[in-house]
Amino acid sequence: MNNPVVIEVTRGPLVESRHEGIAAVVKPDGTVAAAWGDIDAAILPRSANKPIQAMAFVESGAIERFGLGNEHIALACASHYGEKRHVDTVRAWLAKVGLGEDDLECGAHMPRLQASLEDLLRQGKTATAAHNNCSGKHSGFLSTAVQYREVMSDLCGLDANAFPYGTDGCGIPTLATPLKSLARAMASMADPSRLSNKHAEAATRIRAAMNAEPFMMAGTGAFGTRINAALPGVAEVKGGAEGVFCGMLPGLGLGVALKMWDGAGRASEVAMAALLNHLGVLPAEQRDEILHPPVRNVVGLLVGEMRPAKSWLG
Amino acid sequence: MNNPVVIEVTRGPLVESRHEGIAAVVKPDGTVAAAWGDIDAAILPRSANKPIQAMAFVESGAIERFGLGNEHIALACASHYGEKRHVDTVRAWLAKVGLGEDDLECGAHMPRLQASLEDLLRQGKTATAAHNNCSGKHSGFLSTAVQYREVMSDLCGLDANAFPYGTDGCGIPTLATPLKSLARAMASMADPSRLSNKHAEAATRIRAAMNAEPFMMAGTGAFGTRINAALPGVAEVKGGAEGVFCGMLPGLGLGVALKMWDGAGRASEVAMAALLNHLGVLPAEQRDEILHPPVRNVVGLLVGEMRPAKSWLG
Repeated sequence: MNNPVVIEVTRGPLVESRHEGIAAVVKPDGTVAAAWGDIDAAILPRSANKPIQAMAFVESGAIERFGLGNEHIALACASHYGEKRHVDTVRAWLAKVGLGEDDLECGAHMPRLQASLEDLLRQGKTATAAHNNCSGKHSGFLSTAVQYREVMSDLCGLDANAFPYGTDGCGIPTLATPLKSLARAMASMADPSRLSNKHAEAATRIRAAMNAEPFMMAGTGAFGTRINAALPGVAEVKGGAEGVFCGMLPGLGLGVALKMWDGAGRASEVAMAALLNHLGVLPAEQRDEILHPPVRNVVGLLVGEMRPAKSWLG
Repeated sequence: MNNPVVIEVTRGPLVESRHEGIAAVVKPDGTVAAAWGDIDAAILPRSANKPIQAMAFVESGAIERFGLGNEHIALACASHYGEKRHVDTVRAWLAKVGLGEDDLECGAHMPRLQASLEDLLRQGKTATAAHNNCSGKHSGFLSTAVQYREVMSDLCGLDANAFPYGTDGCGIPTLATPLKSLARAMASMADPSRLSNKHAEAATRIRAAMNAEPFMMAGTGAFGTRINAALPGVAEVKGGAEGVFCGMLPGLGLGVALKMWDGAGRASEVAMAALLNHLGVLPAEQRDEILHPPVRNVVGLLVGEMRPAKSWLG
């Protein structure tokens, strides 16, 4: 492949494994600020686009209607760890909209509940129908997907209805998006001045929630949680399955998207750290640990590290 | 990197991720039968070399001395799942050599117990010293490592004392081995006619145990367990961390080794399946499922597959 974004995994004196990928840094008007590799390649954003998917939820008025706050918006953008506060907040949220946990669980384990729940809550008005039958729930998924394509089109600056798609972990479509366009969508959320007022308000609210409730975005010790906590107003990041990571940089008016072609989440985090460092926003006190995370064996012994390759920001 | 071994992961109509690696098929005399990529590159074999490490255990006479069988030899070659029969067999084994589970557990979880246990048992004679103190156990690890370097040298046909090493998951060294040499070591075990009688008997016994007790090699549904069960006398395979897979093909007198450079275990299995199919030994009834394993989402829906790329045995 020969993709320029390279993350190495060492063990002792050796580079044991290496991950390759592509990355784009884009401005809200679509201008490419920096690029490594074929950024016109279409990738599946997976959960990294949850902040974009949350736009429809925030714009629906469900926040005001049900008295929700940053923690709920952050959860709508999240791939959370299912920790107590996540689950408690989900339960209380469900009660606010007039549903009970039993109505949704359907024998599913927690992550599935969360995915289903988020999708139901994103639609606001049709939550009651979904509560009563499975077909309603599926209609909800589909209507969210339609809204999501409209938001994607607005944020990417092109017609997302033409994007092919795959099926994501929770059953909804994940649109095949050129990496460059995904980075532009992030830039549009970072600096929403070119968007409609409705979109701009939702984007600003979502960014604020991601920084205000970083724990809700993932969980204890998670890379995304740490970055969102450390950089309020400076960076909001979200990863997705199969090596995707996205970021909004409101201070710089930039959006970032990257994809490790081998799908490695561990590498996507180091690559995002390298990009944040390259762009001058990585906190000095976290730099070494985040740029060179340790590799430990079963008993906790330090046996290697992960790092950007010398050939790419290393 | 542009490594020729390519495994694709699809989702819907798209190739979402791809894994690249190298592979070698070698004869016992070191002749390369087939090669894809830089097979002189040194890789860390990790657990894929457990069958080689087991040579010292089998040659020590511990089998006869303690009345052990195929299931114990298979466990010595294993990265097992910690299922009931694995644990029960380990406990009974420990009792046979005069140790109790509590003597070794030291607060470690099961995989660590297993690793420690295997290393103790491999040395046979020093088991009692290790049972009494940690420094004895460490001496045991080191003496196993020394024996292992000797066996590696004999099987690879070159001086393994010169190999640099990293620290493996259980604390013992993992030698940086040229992929070609690792494949040759597998070939030497597949057709041990060039080895000393002592080595040849141990290699034959180890291969027989891997086929006779495939469950002990990993566990329910594991790729290695399925291959070793399906192909007695035809193929014995073992994977290792970070995308390594090795195989002995006694019928063909060949050894196989492969390394996915990104460290992906999921890809190393499909690559081994593709090589076995290429060499004509993959059972027809398992071919489709093993060559194209399904990718399912959280609720079990088929969303894609893994497969060798068209450019490499696909």
